[in-house]
Amino acid sequence: MPLVHCFEFTILGQQVSLPVPLLLNVAISAGAFLAGRSLIPKMKPMFINANLYGIDMNKKSKPKIPEAFGVVTGCIFLVSLFLFIPVPFLRNFSTTVKGDFPHDKFVEFIAAMLSICCMILLGFADDVLNLRWRDKLYLPTIASLPLLMVYYTNFNSTTVILPKLVRPLLGQSLDIGVLYYLFMGMLAVFCTNAINILAGINGLEVCQSLIIAGSIVVFNVIEILSGHHNDAHEFSLYIMLPYIGATLALWRYNRYPSEVFVGDTFNYLSGMTFAVVGILGHFSKTVLLFFIPQVLNFLYSVPQLFRFIPCPRHRMPKHDPATDLLHISRTQFRVDELNALGRLCYQIFRHLRLIRCEVDQDGKTVTCNNFTIINFCILLTGPIREDRLNRLLVIFQLACAMFAFTIRYPLAHFFYDAN
Amino acid sequence: MPLVHCFEFTILGQQVSLPVPLLLNVAISAGAFLAGRSLIPKMKPMFINANLYGIDMNKKSKPKIPEAFGVVTGCIFLVSLFLFIPVPFLRNFSTTVKGDFPHDKFVEFIAAMLSICCMILLGFADDVLNLRWRDKLYLPTIASLPLLMVYYTNFNSTTVILPKLVRPLLGQSLDIGVLYYLFMGMLAVFCTNAINILAGINGLEVCQSLIIAGSIVVFNVIEILSGHHNDAHEFSLYIMLPYIGATLALWRYNRYPSEVFVGDTFNYLSGMTFAVVGILGHFSKTVLLFFIPQVLNFLYSVPQLFRFIPCPRHRMPKHDPATDLLHISRTQFRVDELNALGRLCYQIFRHLRLIRCEVDQDGKTVTCNNFTIINFCILLTGPIREDRLNRLLVIFQLACAMFAFTIRYPLAHFFYDAN
Repeated sequence: MPLVHCFEFTILGQQVSLPVPLLLNVAISAGAFLAGRSLIPKMKPMFINANLYGIDMNKKSKPKIPEAFGVVTGCIFLVSLFLFIPVPFLRNFSTTVKGDFPHDKFVEFIAAMLSICCMILLGFADDVLNLRWRDKLYLPTIASLPLLMVYYTNFNSTTVILPKLVRPLLGQSLDIGVLYYLFMGMLAVFCTNAINILAGINGLEVCQSLIIAGSIVVFNVIEILSGHHNDAHEFSLYIMLPYIGATLALWRYNRYPSEVFVGDTFNYLSGMTFAVVGILGHFSKTVLLFFIPQVLNFLYSVPQLFRFIPCPRHRMPKHDPATDLLHISRTQFRVDELNALGRLCYQIFRHLRLIRCEVDQDGKTVTCNNFTIINFCILLTGPIREDRLNRLLVIFQLACAMFAFTIRYPLAHFFYDAN
Repeated sequence: MPLVHCFEFTILGQQVSLPVPLLLNVAISAGAFLAGRSLIPKMKPMFINANLYGIDMNKKSKPKIPEAFGVVTGCIFLVSLFLFIPVPFLRNFSTTVKGDFPHDKFVEFIAAMLSICCMILLGFADDVLNLRWRDKLYLPTIASLPLLMVYYTNFNSTTVILPKLVRPLLGQSLDIGVLYYLFMGMLAVFCTNAINILAGINGLEVCQSLIIAGSIVVFNVIEILSGHHNDAHEFSLYIMLPYIGATLALWRYNRYPSEVFVGDTFNYLSGMTFAVVGILGHFSKTVLLFFIPQVLNFLYSVPQLFRFIPCPRHRMPKHDPATDLLHISRTQFRVDELNALGRLCYQIFRHLRLIRCEVDQDGKTVTCNNFTIINFCILLTGPIREDRLNRLLVIFQLACAMFAFTIRYPLAHFFYDAN
């Protein structure tokens, strides 16, 4: 897809040239931010009336907070994308004959929006109807079907470049066929749920999503400036910028102390958006690199998620109304009642000092923190205020993003040929 | 899009040949029906728990009925379409080189699904959040944007063939340009809301939608058998059959006495589906022909919809618990308080005997039936049982469908050249 006319200007003696679609995209993204900022406060009573609210357990006053505002952000994001659809194709309308229209690029946009729209619908249905835990696994799979289909028709490249280390054994590259589609489907499931399980304190879901989105934008800009695969990275920017615009407005109301909660809708929407740009932009491995904290949290959570260790319904930190500080939340179990895997996880985690345990006088009943990096952070800092805890986790996510860029650029050369 | 291999067999000495995609579509549609039949009863408690229920005012016991089940039907319908996406393109995968893939056809499917998915999302948000009346007008406009965009890129034909009568004045055809897009956008708004305002008794929304869908299918089959525009009519069948499958399951639980209510979600979803096939199949005028009862109801409702005559919040018939019969519901106003348009409508409707009025002793205060064809039907029959009233309206819709085919086929030749 060739770039439409550029907008050129000189700044500090430097000639700068910006493509018009990008400028329009930035304008639409700013519009998304403004729309969100004005709509969200107006819609709060509607959500309360519809019984869509939660109690903020980490506040003294235990306020009623309207829930599932991700659906507002999602709709604003979608409408922004709808309005932007024609823009990258304007040149094609004016100068080419009908047959030359790049339908293959066009269908990527539409399919990306279909997957995102479907995920917002399913996420909102989940927030309203409280679907079962196992539904959370197959809903993103359903929503990613159109995406995989477009991948199949447009690229169907299922070949992965192998790291240098294994090339003597397996060759330069390997066609993993249907496994590649399985990987992409699972990427959508992982991205949506990984954000969903690293949550529970004001603003955390939105902050982590914004940092991941920002990292993807930085990555796209670096790639475009170094002249690699322009199309895919432009496509990604066109989707990520309105996402960031709409989400910044949400952050404004979701940050500590939250006036609105985002709901599963937002986590699903965000995860699917990242999966979409990763898959259609051919940089799904790089997207995963920006998920390091989520991956760590997932790995740390595995014993509880798969019920090797008993998992309470909520694992978020416990609020002490006297001090307004958050403490770790705990789970209790009898070691002799765990299965073999549970005992193994317990022993490994305890010896690696990943959990803090108190063993009862009988030597069998163990009380330890729930297995989330939020609780782990409180283990390191001691009881802490909610906003400070969020700030620490945000710093951790930023540090991981830096680390991801280090892996992606300098270190990748050890394993792969130059970009 | 060429047809994939046909499945041929002989029945009663007749050679019959059915395209494989159509057979698979029928199978998926049957699956949609079965999925709906088993899912809907299971999900009833979820909706009640989520406070999504209404009271059935037309029953003695005033039962709590779960509401907005259109979202379940919508999701089943969408998943059926997702699963069907690859089928019409199977041949293209196996025999052609990459560049030949019919992306223009493919993008029609994806955009159709995007518009439908977006409409389900907005409809469900409306059911949950009770959006304002004016939102109901612009939500379908938003959802139809991707559709119009695809129409623009794939056809951009805004020329209408004129009836023979006006040809001496205006010529054979007329390019109405942007008005055509306005017409298509308004078609989506009309289809969604026209079904929404002809509602209020058990099963009516679903029955009318099924009859319209059936009429479209019959029309498509007639056109395919007479060899016209195969592609567009195939496309329409591929969308309408899963719609009918999913909706039949909903009808099973929504018919008198309703176990579930369909909600605005269903009406939006249905209206958008009909608008989608009409627009992308180039037979939007024919689709409108199948909406005769809705058009009549809309025209009859205009004085109340635009508030020339006072309009109560609900205009559905009134239930008499003693006899279990439905009576007309009424509105009351003072003639001297109406504006000029209101007085005009009142006089015209009264003289055409479209409304039954009772004038108070002061000669100014009027009590008359609400302006819906449901109430008009009760005016003709007298108080009536809910299921019989529904049956009469269904018969009326069927009669109108017959009439539509009469206009479409024999009569059209008076106004246009042969097909």
